[in-house]
Amino acid sequence: MTIPFTNIVKELPASTPFVGPETIEREREQIFQARIGANESAFGISPAALSAMADSLSRSCWYADPENYELRAALADRHNVDMDEIVVDAGIDSLLGLTVRMLLNPGSVAVTSRGAYPTFNYHVAGFGAGLETVPYKGFHEDPQALIDATNQYKAPLVYFANPDNPMGTWHNSSTVSQLIDSVPDNTILALDEAYIEFAETDIAPPVDPSNPNVIRYRTFSKAYGMAGQRIAYAIAHRDIISGFNKIRNHFGINRVAQIGALASLQDETFIPKVKTQVAAARQRVMDFAATRGLYAEPSYTNFVAVDLKSKERAVAMIQHLADNAIFMRMPGADPLNRCIRVGLGSQEEFDLFVKAFDTGFSSL
Amino acid sequence: MTIPFTNIVKELPASTPFVGPETIEREREQIFQARIGANESAFGISPAALSAMADSLSRSCWYADPENYELRAALADRHNVDMDEIVVDAGIDSLLGLTVRMLLNPGSVAVTSRGAYPTFNYHVAGFGAGLETVPYKGFHEDPQALIDATNQYKAPLVYFANPDNPMGTWHNSSTVSQLIDSVPDNTILALDEAYIEFAETDIAPPVDPSNPNVIRYRTFSKAYGMAGQRIAYAIAHRDIISGFNKIRNHFGINRVAQIGALASLQDETFIPKVKTQVAAARQRVMDFAATRGLYAEPSYTNFVAVDLKSKERAVAMIQHLADNAIFMRMPGADPLNRCIRVGLGSQEEFDLFVKAFDTGFSSL
Repeated sequence: MTIPFTNIVKELPASTPFVGPETIEREREQIFQARIGANESAFGISPAALSAMADSLSRSCWYADPENYELRAALADRHNVDMDEIVVDAGIDSLLGLTVRMLLNPGSVAVTSRGAYPTFNYHVAGFGAGLETVPYKGFHEDPQALIDATNQYKAPLVYFANPDNPMGTWHNSSTVSQLIDSVPDNTILALDEAYIEFAETDIAPPVDPSNPNVIRYRTFSKAYGMAGQRIAYAIAHRDIISGFNKIRNHFGINRVAQIGALASLQDETFIPKVKTQVAAARQRVMDFAATRGLYAEPSYTNFVAVDLKSKERAVAMIQHLADNAIFMRMPGADPLNRCIRVGLGSQEEFDLFVKAFDTGFSSL
Repeated sequence: MTIPFTNIVKELPASTPFVGPETIEREREQIFQARIGANESAFGISPAALSAMADSLSRSCWYADPENYELRAALADRHNVDMDEIVVDAGIDSLLGLTVRMLLNPGSVAVTSRGAYPTFNYHVAGFGAGLETVPYKGFHEDPQALIDATNQYKAPLVYFANPDNPMGTWHNSSTVSQLIDSVPDNTILALDEAYIEFAETDIAPPVDPSNPNVIRYRTFSKAYGMAGQRIAYAIAHRDIISGFNKIRNHFGINRVAQIGALASLQDETFIPKVKTQVAAARQRVMDFAATRGLYAEPSYTNFVAVDLKSKERAVAMIQHLADNAIFMRMPGADPLNRCIRVGLGSQEEFDLFVKAFDTGFSSL
């Protein structure tokens, strides 16, 4: 028998957006002592959220409210939008999948930057669409190049992250506003703001869901420290949100995550505290690089790209770090892949990293 | 601007497979005192799982292992299959979505029973495929009718649940084996066994992933009491599992759910205990119906369909129960919809139900 896969799935290669640290641990038969490669937070969860989640565990027998009503109400209040302009889903990864499914017919084309978030690309391929990429300009995404390619390929969807992953770089609010304004009619800009809470200046243009050209993605995975809980949201024009609601997995949210996200959002003291800790940890990495005569790219995220000046050296360092029980990743595409992406861990993780780095750096 | 929805999404009606109890609570401005309508478990979670989950909450900053390695290893051991013959995902709902996406080209057709699980139908529509239904035979799914329709429409995918939801009925192992054997070449049988742990006799044919014609779905939502955690799995031929892996959301599992599912699986004492409690609660409902001269369909699930003899009476009773703060659902299609589906709740919930039922029954 031939398994009756769709034409799209039949032609898909086996692929996965990222190899998880656990896979590497199993291969190496060694547990990582510092897990600073997946942009996970080292600065905890809101104590209020943790307590609410602990209290809710025994009610895990109940499905979550499929409307995510209370959470959407709180988010609507926070962003000064209507509830109908928000959709909650199990992480930005899942939201990007729905976005692609909603906007890309098989054979149509999406645009992104070469080396940007691989999971977007995974979904584009997974729904049988094509992908056109434009190069970064140095270590920054290039808004003009994205718009030019979007026009050239008549792409219904263009992806842009601010701040950027994997580089940590950002564009200021006026540049992003201009990008939004330049998006062609009948094109949607997927504006991934997963790391926006870490930004040191106001780089997010006002949220305006009356504009049907942009979807804003926010998450509880990064600053809120809840990556393992899988909960995020998008803000967009109500017609776009209706589109999400036509296809999303309505009972897909974990009930504990839903409760935790709401409590976390309501804990006004938490994010400022995390932001301060992240800023300090970031400075630690900047200083570390400077001391070694290396360029570290200023970052508005919870990681810092440190330039090792060639892909070969970066690959060798990631390998060396793994040999020393440190999990780190590096960007996947030229010219970003001369860097390693140093995640902001605890002081202990940082110390382990520095120690391992220094033993390997001399022999690169 | 026109939002550039795909052709499929453009034509989809706004729909949702189920209205959640919270939505009804908000509309009625009243909290349900008995939540016995969504087939959620009233018999708790394994204490070992609860404890493992509580311990893991503070590590929610970490993503779950995208390979679900440890859980798949334990499941493979349990079912005597290879790890490559198992995929873990965020609930059977999500697995059904992936299944449809993987097997149904737009315009192709799936087969199911009229009144069977609506979320399957939701996904079929959501991916632009057509749906053909066959009637139940009495209150049972009709395997022969499913096969006939599958042949007639050359359907690549046919859905069958054993035990059945919404009726709680079942077919024995040999009938299901025969169904599996009758599936035409190039067709996949989606065999939903969400409620299998509740069965009082052995109605599940041996799991045989060498057969590429069937996907078996199992979940931690029902007997394991973890619906709100969103974790389930499918067992199938390794080529089918490879198909899932090409399109699934690799980082889509909640880390706490993953840990809880494993602990729950390893707690050998839990399911037998739940099974006993469920059997007793089921008998309570059978007795209740008999006392009132009503037919209750014998069930191998955590709910019992009680026949009120007409759709109008069933609708009126669901309404009356809601007026009395009791959440219950009824089947959605003729002729099943002369029944109400009584979920097996706690003794307290059952008492509330009986009290409310009796005040309403006389005036039906």
